[in-house]
Amino acid sequence: MERIYNFSAGPSMMPLAVLQRAASEMVNFNGCGQSVMEMSHRTDEFSRIINKTESLLRKLMGVPQNYHVLFLQGGAWTQFAMVPINLAAVERDSPFKKAVYIDTGIWADKAISEASKYVVARTPASSKGEKYTYIPCPPPAEPDDAYYYICLNNTIMGTRWTELPATGGVPLVADVSSCILSEPIDVNRFGLVFAGAQKNLGPAGCTIVVIKDGLCEGAPSWAPAMLNYSAHINEKSLFNTPPCYCIYMIGLMLEWLDEMGGVEAAYKINQEKAALLYNYIDESGFYRAPVRPKDRSLMNVRFSIQEEDAEKQKLLEKRFTKQAQAAGLANLAGHRLAGGLRASIYNAMPIEGVRALIEFMNHFKKDV
Amino acid sequence: MERIYNFSAGPSMMPLAVLQRAASEMVNFNGCGQSVMEMSHRTDEFSRIINKTESLLRKLMGVPQNYHVLFLQGGAWTQFAMVPINLAAVERDSPFKKAVYIDTGIWADKAISEASKYVVARTPASSKGEKYTYIPCPPPAEPDDAYYYICLNNTIMGTRWTELPATGGVPLVADVSSCILSEPIDVNRFGLVFAGAQKNLGPAGCTIVVIKDGLCEGAPSWAPAMLNYSAHINEKSLFNTPPCYCIYMIGLMLEWLDEMGGVEAAYKINQEKAALLYNYIDESGFYRAPVRPKDRSLMNVRFSIQEEDAEKQKLLEKRFTKQAQAAGLANLAGHRLAGGLRASIYNAMPIEGVRALIEFMNHFKKDV
Repeated sequence: MERIYNFSAGPSMMPLAVLQRAASEMVNFNGCGQSVMEMSHRTDEFSRIINKTESLLRKLMGVPQNYHVLFLQGGAWTQFAMVPINLAAVERDSPFKKAVYIDTGIWADKAISEASKYVVARTPASSKGEKYTYIPCPPPAEPDDAYYYICLNNTIMGTRWTELPATGGVPLVADVSSCILSEPIDVNRFGLVFAGAQKNLGPAGCTIVVIKDGLCEGAPSWAPAMLNYSAHINEKSLFNTPPCYCIYMIGLMLEWLDEMGGVEAAYKINQEKAALLYNYIDESGFYRAPVRPKDRSLMNVRFSIQEEDAEKQKLLEKRFTKQAQAAGLANLAGHRLAGGLRASIYNAMPIEGVRALIEFMNHFKKDV
Repeated sequence: MERIYNFSAGPSMMPLAVLQRAASEMVNFNGCGQSVMEMSHRTDEFSRIINKTESLLRKLMGVPQNYHVLFLQGGAWTQFAMVPINLAAVERDSPFKKAVYIDTGIWADKAISEASKYVVARTPASSKGEKYTYIPCPPPAEPDDAYYYICLNNTIMGTRWTELPATGGVPLVADVSSCILSEPIDVNRFGLVFAGAQKNLGPAGCTIVVIKDGLCEGAPSWAPAMLNYSAHINEKSLFNTPPCYCIYMIGLMLEWLDEMGGVEAAYKINQEKAALLYNYIDESGFYRAPVRPKDRSLMNVRFSIQEEDAEKQKLLEKRFTKQAQAAGLANLAGHRLAGGLRASIYNAMPIEGVRALIEFMNHFKKDV
C-alpha cells in the first residue's frame, strides 16, 4: 500500500522526506558508529543535536533571547499541573492565589480542573453554552491574577484565537500544542507557551516549553522535582535523561520547515488549505462547519453531515469515515467527546491531501 | 566508520538487528501506509503494537495476571515522586506516613530526597560510609511502614542486590532501571517495580511500571493527574498520548530478547560477560574493582587504575577513556559523581564487545 493521507489530530502525519532521512540515519548517525537512540545524553554528539534543535526552534518561532526553551516529557497534561504549580502555587498551609482561565473547550476545561488543585481558577468567559463553537470575548485580567491562561487553538472544537487578550502586566500563558509553527506568533506577548510534539513538531513523547526568563522563581517545596521549571532551566533540559530520539526527530521536522521557507511559508499554505476545505463545506449544501467563520481553526477543520435525524446522521458519518479510510484518507472521525467529523491538516499535510479529501467528500455526497 | 561498542550507562547500545528493522519499517509500517510515529494512539494499528509489547513483557519478565503493566513518561525521577505520592502521601493537613529506604548510592539518595517531600523516609541502612561499595544488610520493616524501597542495581556505584530483604507484609518497591530483564526476578516478591527504558529496554522516553493490583488505592486530591497511577491503570496507559514510538521500539527489543531465548539465556551471557571482565580486572595487577565481589553488578562494571598518586591516576584514566574512544570503545568514564571508570554491559552488549575491551585494557596496561 502507498502512504495514506492521515487526518489524525495527533499523533499525526509527518513529511515523507523526514521519515526517509530518519530511516537512513538510524543505524549509524553521521558516521559516528551508533544510532541517535543509543547516544548518551551527556555526549558531544547529542549536545550538537539538542543545541541545533533549540537554535532552529528559536529561529523559526522567533524566540527572544530572554526566553528559555525546554524539551520535557509528559505532554499537555503535565503542563496543566506545572503551570499553576510553578506560576502560582503556594506552600501547604497558605491560601491559594488566583489565575484566569478562558474556557474554550475540552482541553481548556481539563487545564482548569487540574489547576483548581493549586490555584483559584477564575473562569470569567466561556463558550460552553454554545458548544464551544466560538472564542468568547476575553475580559481584562485583574492585577492580582497570577497569570492568564488560554488554549490558542482548540484541537477538539476546531476554534482558534485570532486576537490575543489584553492582560496588562499579567503573564499570558498559552497551550499552543495544535498550532505551534503553523502561523506566526509574537512570543513577546506571552509569559509561557507549551506544545506537545505530536502535531506539528514530531512524534509523541516530547513537550516544548518556551518560558520568559524570571517568570518562574521556583515551585513550592512540595512540588516534585520533575515538575519544577527551574530544575529544567538550570540544567538546560538535561536535569534527567530527556527523550533524546524525539528531540532529534523534532530537529529533522524543523529543518524541513526551515527549508520550505519557515513559518511564513507554512502559514500561507495552511491558510490556502483551510480556505479550500471550509469553502467547499460551506458551499456543499450537504456538509456543515459548526464553528463561527472568524474563529475557525486552520489546523483542525470540524464538520458534520447535514441531516436532521440524529441517528441517520451518525450512521452516515460512520459510513463516511469508513469509506474514506478505505480510500486512504484516515482518521476523519471527530473526537469521541465532540462527535461529527474532523480533518486535522497540520503543516505536514500537503495541499494534495486536502484536494483528495474534497474530491472524496464530493463523491460521497453524490452517492448518498 | 563501523558501529562502535558503546559502554554508556544509558541511553545505551541496542542490537543492530533491532535498529535495522526499525529503519526498514520507518516509512510504511506493516503495509499500513504510515510510520508508527504518525499513528494515532487511538487506532487499531497502535493498539496491536502496545498490546503485543505488553504481552511480551509479561511473558519475558513473568508478570502475574494480578499486576498491571504501565508505559509512562518522565523516567525514574518521576517515579521517585509517584511512589510516595501514590503509596503513602496524605491530604494537605494530615501528618506524614513513613516508609523505608535503603541507601545504596546516588540514585537511592535522590529517591530519598524526593520522597521526603511526601513521607517520613526512614533510612535504617546505608553503605555511604564505605563509598557505597557494598549492599548493606537490610533491617526488617516495621508494620506501619507504607512500603520498603530499594534500588535493585546501582548504575553509578556498580552494586546489585542478590538477596531481597524480608519485608513481611510491607510492599517491596524497587528501581530496576538498570537490571530489568538482565536476570530473572520473581515479580511476586514486589509490590511495584519501575524502569526507565534507556538501558535494557530501548530508547529514552518511556518508563515501565509493574504494579500489583490494589496496591495503590488512589493518590491524594492534590496530586497531579499525570502522577496518579490509578489514572494510567484505568486507561491502560492511554490516559494521555503515550510515547508511541518508544513503546514500539521496546516491542522490537523484547522480540529480540525473546528470540535469543528470553531472560534465562540473557542472564547466562550476562554472567559470562561480567565474570570475564571482573576476573581480568582482579588478576591484572593494574586495574581494580572497588565493589565487594558478592555485590558486584552484572550490568555496570566499575573499575579504576591502581595508582597511589590521585592526580596521576586521574590523568591515566583520562588517557584510557580517550584512547578507548578512538579504538571504538565508547563512554568508559565513570559517572561524574563517582569518578574512575565504568563499563556498562547491558543485554545488547555482545560478548565480543567485552573481549575487545579486555584486549584494549591489556594493551593499555602494557603501554603505560
